[in-house]
Amino acid sequence: MRRVAISSAASSKFTKESGKSIFELACGPCIEILKESDVEKKVDAVLVSTCATEQYSSTIVSEMLGIKPKVSHRVDNLCNSGTNAIASAYSLIASGLCDSALVVGVEKAASEGNKLVWDVTRGSFNFPVHWASMFAKAHMRKYDTTEEQMAQVSVKNHKNAAKNPGALFRKPVSLQDVMNSKKIADPVKLLDCSAPCDGASAVLLLSEKKARTTENPVWINGIGQQTNGASFASAGDLTALDTARKAAKDAYTMAKIIPSQVDIAELHDAFTILEIIAYEDVGFAPRGKGGRFVEQDSIAINTRGGILGCGHPVGATGVAQVTEVALQLQGRAGKRQAGGCKTGLVHNLAAAGSSATVMVLGV
Amino acid sequence: MRRVAISSAASSKFTKESGKSIFELACGPCIEILKESDVEKKVDAVLVSTCATEQYSSTIVSEMLGIKPKVSHRVDNLCNSGTNAIASAYSLIASGLCDSALVVGVEKAASEGNKLVWDVTRGSFNFPVHWASMFAKAHMRKYDTTEEQMAQVSVKNHKNAAKNPGALFRKPVSLQDVMNSKKIADPVKLLDCSAPCDGASAVLLLSEKKARTTENPVWINGIGQQTNGASFASAGDLTALDTARKAAKDAYTMAKIIPSQVDIAELHDAFTILEIIAYEDVGFAPRGKGGRFVEQDSIAINTRGGILGCGHPVGATGVAQVTEVALQLQGRAGKRQAGGCKTGLVHNLAAAGSSATVMVLGV
Repeated sequence: MRRVAISSAASSKFTKESGKSIFELACGPCIEILKESDVEKKVDAVLVSTCATEQYSSTIVSEMLGIKPKVSHRVDNLCNSGTNAIASAYSLIASGLCDSALVVGVEKAASEGNKLVWDVTRGSFNFPVHWASMFAKAHMRKYDTTEEQMAQVSVKNHKNAAKNPGALFRKPVSLQDVMNSKKIADPVKLLDCSAPCDGASAVLLLSEKKARTTENPVWINGIGQQTNGASFASAGDLTALDTARKAAKDAYTMAKIIPSQVDIAELHDAFTILEIIAYEDVGFAPRGKGGRFVEQDSIAINTRGGILGCGHPVGATGVAQVTEVALQLQGRAGKRQAGGCKTGLVHNLAAAGSSATVMVLGV
Repeated sequence: MRRVAISSAASSKFTKESGKSIFELACGPCIEILKESDVEKKVDAVLVSTCATEQYSSTIVSEMLGIKPKVSHRVDNLCNSGTNAIASAYSLIASGLCDSALVVGVEKAASEGNKLVWDVTRGSFNFPVHWASMFAKAHMRKYDTTEEQMAQVSVKNHKNAAKNPGALFRKPVSLQDVMNSKKIADPVKLLDCSAPCDGASAVLLLSEKKARTTENPVWINGIGQQTNGASFASAGDLTALDTARKAAKDAYTMAKIIPSQVDIAELHDAFTILEIIAYEDVGFAPRGKGGRFVEQDSIAINTRGGILGCGHPVGATGVAQVTEVALQLQGRAGKRQAGGCKTGLVHNLAAAGSSATVMVLGV
C-alpha cells in the first residue's frame, strides 16, 4: 500500500455572503496552496466537493487555476461531501492512479441541501433542527445530559472561533447568552445551531515519495466510513450514531491507535448535541458521559471554532475540518495553535448522522 | 497493487421518458446485479454518477436497495461522469479501502447539463452541436473526410441498436435517411446527433480475491484520464482531441497492450464526427484516416448501438459503455454478441472533449 500525506491546507474566510461565484470562492484557498507548494501546476487530480448545482465545476475550477489534471470530478454527499472527496483522493493516490490530488470543498450559503425532501419519514419536521431536538431530548432523558452542558459546547467553540480570523462568528458568547437565545425546537436554541455560509477549504494530497520531499507532511493513517441510509427512520437509538461509531472503529483499526492517543480533533458540531454524542462515538468519553466531557482539556477539540463558530458551508465543511487538523499538526495554526499535537482525528456527518466519516491523521 | 474486476453489469431500457424518478431508474439495473451476484447486500461502496441535482442521491439509492455501504457519494463530470465514477470505484478497491463497489450511472432526459453556460468563449454557439459542426468542418477541410462517411457511422450504430432491446432507437436508418435528415448546424444533420433520454446502467466491481470466486470476471487493466479545461477555447487542433489521445496512451501503457490488440470498443459517438476522430485518437486508424475506417470490421465498435443508437442519458453514458464491453467480454451480449472478444476498450468524453477517459478491459 502506498502511503498518502497532506502537504498543504488552506481555508478562505467564511462569510455570510462573499459576493463571489462558487468558482471564484473555490479558487481562493487553492491559489494559496499552489503558491506554497512545489507541485506548481502539475496536479494529477482536482476534486471539488460541493452541493451547489453548477455543472462541470471541478473542470471549470481546474481551468481557472491553470491546472490540467488527469482526473477531475465533483463529489457530493451533503455535509459529508468533503471527507468523501478526501477519501477518494486518498484512494486515487494509494491505488497508484495519481501522485497528487487537490481537493477543494466549496459552498455558497444559498446552495441547496438544507432539507432532505426525499425523506418523508420526517413528515413536516424536515429541517435538521428537528432531529437535533430529538437527539437532545433522548440524550437528556437517558443520561441526564443538561441544556447547560450543550450550551457549554457553544461557549467553548465560539471562544475558539474568536481566535480564528477566518471564522464567521468571532464574538465570544456566555453561557447565559446561549441559554437565553431564542428557542428553535425545544430544547435546541439559536446558539446551539450552526449557520449556513459562504466558504471554501482545500488540501493538497501527495504520494509518499512526493510527500517525503516536503517539510511538514501530515499522514492520512486511518479512514473509516459508514452509511446507514438516507432516512431519519433508520437512525435507531437516538443517543448514539451507529455510523460514526463504526467509522471511528475502522479508522482506529487502520491507523493502529486507540482513542486516548488522539491529541486534537474536529468533531461535527452542526448542533451542540452532536459534539456531545461525538465524544462518545469516537471513544473519548464512555456512553452517556458526553455531557460532562465538555469540561475536559486533555484533547484540543474544534480549535478553529467548529461548525458552530466557523459557519457551515455544507460541501466545504469536511475539508475545513481536515484543513484545521492538518494545520495544527504542522504547527501552523497561528493564535489558536494547540501544543504538542502528534495525532489528530476528524469526525464528519451528514443528514442526522445517516452517514459518517472518521479520519486519523498523524505527523 | 490489488487488481480489480467487473463481475456484473446491467442496463435499464433507455427511453424518452420512463415515468420513473431518478432513484427508481437507478435501482433497476442495481437490483438485477444484486440478484445475480453473491455479494447479497454487502457492498462496500455505492457511487452514483449523474448530472441530476437531487441531493444525497447515492445514499437514497443505497437505502432503497437495502445496502449499508461504507462509502456513498455522487460523482459528476458531465458526459464523462460515468467513467470517472468507475475509476473512483477502482481506486477505492485497489487502495484497499473497499472490497466491492456498485457504480450506477443514471439520468433523466430533463436533467441539466446540455449547455455549459459558464463557457463564454462559445458565445451564442453554446449547444454541443455547434462544436460538433466545427470539428466536422475542420476534419473535412484537413483530411477530405466526407459527410457520407459521417453518415455511415450513424447507419452502422443504428443497425447495431436494432439488435439491442434496451436502445432508444431500434429502427435501422439508410445512408439516404441520414443525408436527408434536417441540417442542425452545417454539416451536422439530425441523424448525426444523439438524443438525451432516461436511462441507468450499473456495474459491480470486486477485489481480485472476491472476483476469483465469480464465473466471468472482466479485469480493469488500464485507466487513462485527461482534462484540458472546461472551455472550447482550449480545444486547440480541432481535428483531434488531445485529452483522448493522452488518456488512450496512459490506458494502453497501464494495460501493457497496443491498439491492434483491442477486439471490441465503445467509442463516444454523441455526434458521428466524434466516432471518426476517436478511431484516430485511440490509435485504431492513423491521423486523418478515420473517415475511411468506418468500413472496417476487424474491431467490433459500438455494438450496443453507441450513443447515437442508445440515446445519451448523460451521467449514465460512461457506465453504459463499460457495461456493454463487460457483457461482450463475458459472452452475455445476446443477439448482438461479437465473436472471440478478449480485450475491450471504452472511450468517454465530456464537453467538446475537454476531458476524456479511456479504459482497457480484459478477460
